[in-house]
Amino acid sequence: MAKQCDEAVTQIHLKQKMTVNELVVAMGKAGAYNGGSLARAVDIYDQMLRDTETTKFFGLAGAMVPAGMGGIVSDLIKGGHIDVLVSTGANLTHDIIEAIGCKHFHGTAFCNDVELRHDEINRIYDVYLPNEAFEHFEEFIQKVFEELEPGSTISISALLKHIGKNLKSGILHTAYHNNIPVYCPALQDSMIGLQYWLFSQTNKVTVDAFADMPALMDRCFTAKKAGAMLVGGGVPKNFILQSMLMTPNGFSYAVQLTGDRPDLGGLSGATLDEARSWGKITEEAQAVTVYGDATITLPVMVAAVLERRSL
Amino acid sequence: MAKQCDEAVTQIHLKQKMTVNELVVAMGKAGAYNGGSLARAVDIYDQMLRDTETTKFFGLAGAMVPAGMGGIVSDLIKGGHIDVLVSTGANLTHDIIEAIGCKHFHGTAFCNDVELRHDEINRIYDVYLPNEAFEHFEEFIQKVFEELEPGSTISISALLKHIGKNLKSGILHTAYHNNIPVYCPALQDSMIGLQYWLFSQTNKVTVDAFADMPALMDRCFTAKKAGAMLVGGGVPKNFILQSMLMTPNGFSYAVQLTGDRPDLGGLSGATLDEARSWGKITEEAQAVTVYGDATITLPVMVAAVLERRSL
Amino acid sequence: MAKQCDEAVTQIHLKQKMTVNELVVAMGKAGAYNGGSLARAVDIYDQMLRDTETTKFFGLAGAMVPAGMGGIVSDLIKGGHIDVLVSTGANLTHDIIEAIGCKHFHGTAFCNDVELRHDEINRIYDVYLPNEAFEHFEEFIQKVFEELEPGSTISISALLKHIGKNLKSGILHTAYHNNIPVYCPALQDSMIGLQYWLFSQTNKVTVDAFADMPALMDRCFTAKKAGAMLVGGGVPKNFILQSMLMTPNGFSYAVQLTGDRPDLGGLSGATLDEARSWGKITEEAQAVTVYGDATITLPVMVAAVLERRSL
Amino acid sequence: MAKQCDEAVTQIHLKQKMTVNELVVAMGKAGAYNGGSLARAVDIYDQMLRDTETTKFFGLAGAMVPAGMGGIVSDLIKGGHIDVLVSTGANLTHDIIEAIGCKHFHGTAFCNDVELRHDEINRIYDVYLPNEAFEHFEEFIQKVFEELEPGSTISISALLKHIGKNLKSGILHTAYHNNIPVYCPALQDSMIGLQYWLFSQTNKVTVDAFADMPALMDRCFTAKKAGAMLVGGGVPKNFILQSMLMTPNGFSYAVQLTGDRPDLGGLSGATLDEARSWGKITEEAQAVTVYGDATITLPVMVAAVLERRSL
Repeated sequence: MAKQCDEAVTQIHLKQKMTVNELVVAMGKAGAYNGGSLARAVDIYDQMLRDTETTKFFGLAGAMVPAGMGGIVSDLIKGGHIDVLVSTGANLTHDIIEAIGCKHFHGTAFCNDVELRHDEINRIYDVYLPNEAFEHFEEFIQKVFEELEPGSTISISALLKHIGKNLKSGILHTAYHNNIPVYCPALQDSMIGLQYWLFSQTNKVTVDAFADMPALMDRCFTAKKAGAMLVGGGVPKNFILQSMLMTPNGFSYAVQLTGDRPDLGGLSGATLDEARSWGKITEEAQAVTVYGDATITLPVMVAAVLERRSL
Repeated sequence: MAKQCDEAVTQIHLKQKMTVNELVVAMGKAGAYNGGSLARAVDIYDQMLRDTETTKFFGLAGAMVPAGMGGIVSDLIKGGHIDVLVSTGANLTHDIIEAIGCKHFHGTAFCNDVELRHDEINRIYDVYLPNEAFEHFEEFIQKVFEELEPGSTISISALLKHIGKNLKSGILHTAYHNNIPVYCPALQDSMIGLQYWLFSQTNKVTVDAFADMPALMDRCFTAKKAGAMLVGGGVPKNFILQSMLMTPNGFSYAVQLTGDRPDLGGLSGATLDEARSWGKITEEAQAVTVYGDATITLPVMVAAVLERRSL
Repeated sequence: MAKQCDEAVTQIHLKQKMTVNELVVAMGKAGAYNGGSLARAVDIYDQMLRDTETTKFFGLAGAMVPAGMGGIVSDLIKGGHIDVLVSTGANLTHDIIEAIGCKHFHGTAFCNDVELRHDEINRIYDVYLPNEAFEHFEEFIQKVFEELEPGSTISISALLKHIGKNLKSGILHTAYHNNIPVYCPALQDSMIGLQYWLFSQTNKVTVDAFADMPALMDRCFTAKKAGAMLVGGGVPKNFILQSMLMTPNGFSYAVQLTGDRPDLGGLSGATLDEARSWGKITEEAQAVTVYGDATITLPVMVAAVLERRSL
Repeated sequence: MAKQCDEAVTQIHLKQKMTVNELVVAMGKAGAYNGGSLARAVDIYDQMLRDTETTKFFGLAGAMVPAGMGGIVSDLIKGGHIDVLVSTGANLTHDIIEAIGCKHFHGTAFCNDVELRHDEINRIYDVYLPNEAFEHFEEFIQKVFEELEPGSTISISALLKHIGKNLKSGILHTAYHNNIPVYCPALQDSMIGLQYWLFSQTNKVTVDAFADMPALMDRCFTAKKAGAMLVGGGVPKNFILQSMLMTPNGFSYAVQLTGDRPDLGGLSGATLDEARSWGKITEEAQAVTVYGDATITLPVMVAAVLERRSL
């Protein structure tokens, strides 16, 4: 028997009332394709969370908050499992919308969008968001912006912290209370950004695009080890991975949950091996990509990791 | 609030030691994208299995047995949850390989395939299968073929039944012992087929390509209701869906787990709504497609359904 | 400069009235991702067609005839560029439908399938096919079946040849007139198959599932070299690739146009490198996969190859 | 015949030496799946470019410059076909690298990334970029940054304009000379951003994240009509589409070339119909998405449009 063949695929036999981690362990023994990768992601993420020397980065891209994944992220912050969060303006906009009491709704992707437009409903695949949510959002956020000190210059993370301080739940709220920085390099590219443009028509507070870099880079230089948990690609993935490029080290742990594909060349679908060539992750880094929808892979992965850590 | 907005997205908050079904219920309350679809697939599949008037078809495409999913299928047969199985020659070949004691192994997709060739290892993405498995396979299957009555004509399902009778575990074995027909329209397109060609060089047993149709069509005509659980697309999906076309009815339940996409036009990625236009599924059929890797979605779905049925 | 870096990416500058091959050459000089792969596919396919020692296999999967790609395949047969054709029952069904004067129509994927059902229109993504086409199809094919000799046994390719003889255009017609065998291992899985079941209710002509194997295997054993042009995956891809497995050789040329992805483990999306581990293609084979919709990549590739061969 | 069935699919018959537009016209007559969508994209983009009342936005995401697509974008600017360009920091970084005389190289995705790391080569799927390019990049860009007025505050587009003024070819150079604004909301998320952080260690020039919004919004408010050509998704797609949200109008033309898929919920793969529900594009907008690799679809589309405009 060839030496490469030492660990056999075990056919899965399901039992009654399996816990999520029991199922993931069985998927790991089967060990093939993305089911096998998901089991390996649980192993790596569990090890990364146990490694007290590791600074934990979390990237959140894709429309995850409208899909109910925001609760998982808040809870990870609360549990001390995220040291640095990088997200998109869209996720933070929807986080605020939920935090001020508005709701996203179950809808369908097979609909007439012109009729939805007439009914004042905005669609995100099969999630519906009524326009009135944006009215409440505008009211809230303009009031928050007005508290900023006229003539001052702030960073994007400081602006987000200020918003978080004014909320009672959600990601920004939890990050504020746990003193976790939230970076959002493309804040302009969101409803928060459009509202800030409105605010800036009559107010002068400068948001310095690069003001967050020194603190982030300090964090990277002082980290003994670094780990990256990446939900989706986009700006959060690249911003996290590039942050270690200037240091002598790279990420020692990396897990990526993405629905993209590598052969299109875009960073969102790029393998983590590709990141080794750049030195973004170390040569020996434990790394795995799970291809699939994060609305499935994220809850399964985190539920399994939580279960392991309770033992 | 617009009338379409009545069921809100619930942010997921994971707990310690959740069972798979508890997680799926939470994913259903979030309700978005493929996580929401997976929760709906569990609802529909559970209902289909409870409906005693429903004839249950199961389509198995993709390299699922090498990935350890064969155990789930065997157990579903054993549990009485499959009335008609349609699969590919490849899955049945690998089922036989496992049943005669050979193994598939955990490998990697990032390898040198020419070196694997020299090491006599066949690769299926990240699963390795040593050549010697095919030697044992040849020995077994030729012996089984030699028991066929010279000069006779048989159907593909009869040939598969005969193979199953000679095995001690796996899908074909379990189907044989539970008297479940296994259809495999493209049997020639597999190692079983190549071995049969070898056998037919010196033996004369005719495999009638259409001999399975009458029994299948009778089944379709007499079914009060029909349900289809489709893992992957390919021949199994189409063969199952088309089977009701000649009857006045269509499928009342349909669940599809696929990694393909609809916009390429191929049947494997086609939506189940498309199937409504053909009358393959009924206008009112409960149907859902979950896009993603079945090595994740199949175990999660079946584990959740089993859990519900134990209550 | 590292040794691996010897051929630079050339930025594309488009000119007025470029021919398809001129564009493909520019895409080859850019040379990245699937654009680069498509240019390489043209190089390999061109070389394969020029190589007079090579037996040329063509695999046609996916709903390509309803999408207007059947004309390209017929013309390739006419031009002497296909020696062995393997396709699906669906493509051949739609080929017959077009050949008897029925039409597919431009539709939309964003529609109400229940309404389509009421309007007696069958949908294939954004292609519409009225039910009446199947009425004409039934009338034609039953008449053709009735010409078969009662009590005889025939192969699938002989049945398809008989159909082709009765048509005046299309793939089956052209294959018949050019004496090119058409293999379709899963013929039962199609409207042709359902009609044959109807026919067999009152007639007795046995279709021997394995009767095509000896001629195909002879072809494989006597081929000096073999080349595979694969549109889509499914049965055609595997049936072609496995056909050389029993011979001491493999395919020397292989081009695959697919929209699938490798990480799901299914053969349709598997890389051609994976096929090297099995010996389906030779260690030195020139092979490339172009990921994308074949309704784009097939016409571009064939138009460029035609242009090169006219020089 | 049902009223929905009025335009028949025309089988494609290729001719010798077809021009790209002739091929696209044939693909439009076939009219199915993404081939049909690509033909429609050419129609819409051609009409958008002819419409002199339309302000033309161009979004460039994905690693398009390393793949040789930057030349097409430069030429479109030169030809007067882009009024507003939104791109990613990565594309602009690689544009600078090419403009200062460094090169990207043809590589392979099937390689050992740790060895590449040792050979100081950075990989982007199958494109290689030697580390030394980044050394030249650093030297160039730091010198350019040093020309900025100490103590001043600038916008991102002004910074990019300043860079473009110092280049002799490429996108930024051409945009500068044609007075076309280049927006890049997430500039920090790129090598330009990392270099700017280095620069800012010892220099004080504030980059105001929101300083570009007023001019962009003015442009949107004064546009009689607006058109969006979107290559890839990411920040460019959303930033362009959201820009019209604050005005009473939306985009009248929209073409999207993407390899993503809608069912994951992310904006990159979202249909343009979804954008109608938000009012980002008008109810009557002509809009089409072509799914596939833009290294194929972009050159084909632009070559066909150029050819039409020369007539």
